[in-house]
Amino acid sequence: MTGSPVFDRIAIIGVGLIGSSIAHAAAHAGAAAHIVLYDLDPHVRERARALGLGEVAESPEAAVSGADAVFHCSPVGAIRAAAEASLSAMSPGAILTDVGGVKASVARELAAICPPGVHLIPGHPIAGTERSGPDAGFATLFEGRWCILTPLPSDDPAYAAAVVRLSRFWERLGSRIELMDPARHDLVLAITSHVPHLIAYNICTTAHDLETVTEGEVVKFSAGGFRDFTRIAASDPTMWRDVFLNNREAVLETLGRFTEDLIALQRAIRWGEGEVLFDLFTRARGIRRSIIEAGQDTAAPNFGRDAPASPED
Amino acid sequence: MTGSPVFDRIAIIGVGLIGSSIAHAAAHAGAAAHIVLYDLDPHVRERARALGLGEVAESPEAAVSGADAVFHCSPVGAIRAAAEASLSAMSPGAILTDVGGVKASVARELAAICPPGVHLIPGHPIAGTERSGPDAGFATLFEGRWCILTPLPSDDPAYAAAVVRLSRFWERLGSRIELMDPARHDLVLAITSHVPHLIAYNICTTAHDLETVTEGEVVKFSAGGFRDFTRIAASDPTMWRDVFLNNREAVLETLGRFTEDLIALQRAIRWGEGEVLFDLFTRARGIRRSIIEAGQDTAAPNFGRDAPASPED
Repeated sequence: MTGSPVFDRIAIIGVGLIGSSIAHAAAHAGAAAHIVLYDLDPHVRERARALGLGEVAESPEAAVSGADAVFHCSPVGAIRAAAEASLSAMSPGAILTDVGGVKASVARELAAICPPGVHLIPGHPIAGTERSGPDAGFATLFEGRWCILTPLPSDDPAYAAAVVRLSRFWERLGSRIELMDPARHDLVLAITSHVPHLIAYNICTTAHDLETVTEGEVVKFSAGGFRDFTRIAASDPTMWRDVFLNNREAVLETLGRFTEDLIALQRAIRWGEGEVLFDLFTRARGIRRSIIEAGQDTAAPNFGRDAPASPED
Repeated sequence: MTGSPVFDRIAIIGVGLIGSSIAHAAAHAGAAAHIVLYDLDPHVRERARALGLGEVAESPEAAVSGADAVFHCSPVGAIRAAAEASLSAMSPGAILTDVGGVKASVARELAAICPPGVHLIPGHPIAGTERSGPDAGFATLFEGRWCILTPLPSDDPAYAAAVVRLSRFWERLGSRIELMDPARHDLVLAITSHVPHLIAYNICTTAHDLETVTEGEVVKFSAGGFRDFTRIAASDPTMWRDVFLNNREAVLETLGRFTEDLIALQRAIRWGEGEVLFDLFTRARGIRRSIIEAGQDTAAPNFGRDAPASPED
């Protein structure tokens, strides 16, 4: 919230949850002196204007022209086309970055079209909610969350300086920075994000399709645990389709491990192996504790959603 | 919070999250004039006394003696023994109930030992948090949540009156009542609670065992979705072991459906079937919406755990 702007002018292409949150957060933190937004959808542009997210451009070229940094915030499958439509208007020395949930494929695609002199630094803030669209954004979304940057191999001191500058921008928005290889990012996110989302989507389908239990019953008694899964399964379908199509190998590999473990658990239930179940259930608590200690989740019971529930909390 | 007590004296056997919450809620709502608690573990009894949950008895017989209703709140696998230890001291006309997450096996076990004149009404409040023990309870846990009762087939008007009375007690604690067949309860809970918990436990194990990704990385980047799963995986291991051992058939059946659906999804990812993924992901949103409309979860993004996050919420 203090200091001079990190960038004079940033362009945000794609105004959904992340794009609009960057606009809110950058304005709030004074991290960019001027914010320009563009979205392919004219209704979204109109909404961005009504929300006062910044200057709304009527073409991608106009949006990126003169920008120090261009943030592509479209779903992963649409980033390449969005970048292509505006690359020619980018200034030399400017930063080209994105917020996509998959990094290897995006880095490869953008590297193939990025002109010399433009600094391509793929990125991914590990933050979000189940909401989407320009109205979903808010200024504190990135606070305390990690932002992964996957810089290209480079000896260019100007490129290194651009990485530092982009890091400072995200830090001003409250993020903590991690530099990572794109392939490693995709492997880590497969287990921390992609497979959990897939499982959440899947159990919603299973519940929906069961003939033996009505959807009304599922909804009524969802407080038993099911409702936790439905939150992330309410996330944007286009964004997630693109993630799975673009991180296919890491997702399939991780999913294979998940299924193998699940089948072992299924077998323990079938044969009444209480000790196996107990030991496994006990181990899981440790991970939860670590996440809370790392400040990546609230310690309040039920995520605090029933608050003020407990006088002692 | 109004009206005369539903019961003059209740006994709570097993003082964990649910047992202590019943004590808090009954006192707060004035639903029982006198509350007596007992736990096998002397440290828990001591804690119950320190917390002022009610009168703490030093034997199960002393706890249930003179009680209008006895609530067994031990893990499912321990209910039978706990009931056996105190049945002889129960008054004729008293209610014998429980809060276990599985109903068919508990109903069968208790029916086999319940003396004539005692009204056995198995029950299950669909409420909880990931915390356990006598300190975890709070008065509002049952507010707006369903409580399922699975009465036995009976023509006895006194039994019917006992079911009405127990329903009134739970309603005073804020619950809504559903009467159900025990086998149906177990089928419904398999999808709304048991399989979700199993999956949550399982993905924690998978993450923990991956050699390619460190546990530190999993914890750090858990905000991508994984952290939601770890909450319910932090629940009491003994309680959950007993649930799976006692609802084996419904869990295995539901798990089979889940795995079948997951493998179809895996195949769609492998073959790049974007439309299949998109359609399936779109359907999941409807279930989330229904749960929020039914008042079974908060509509706030991220369960509101980041609040005050968004000025517009």
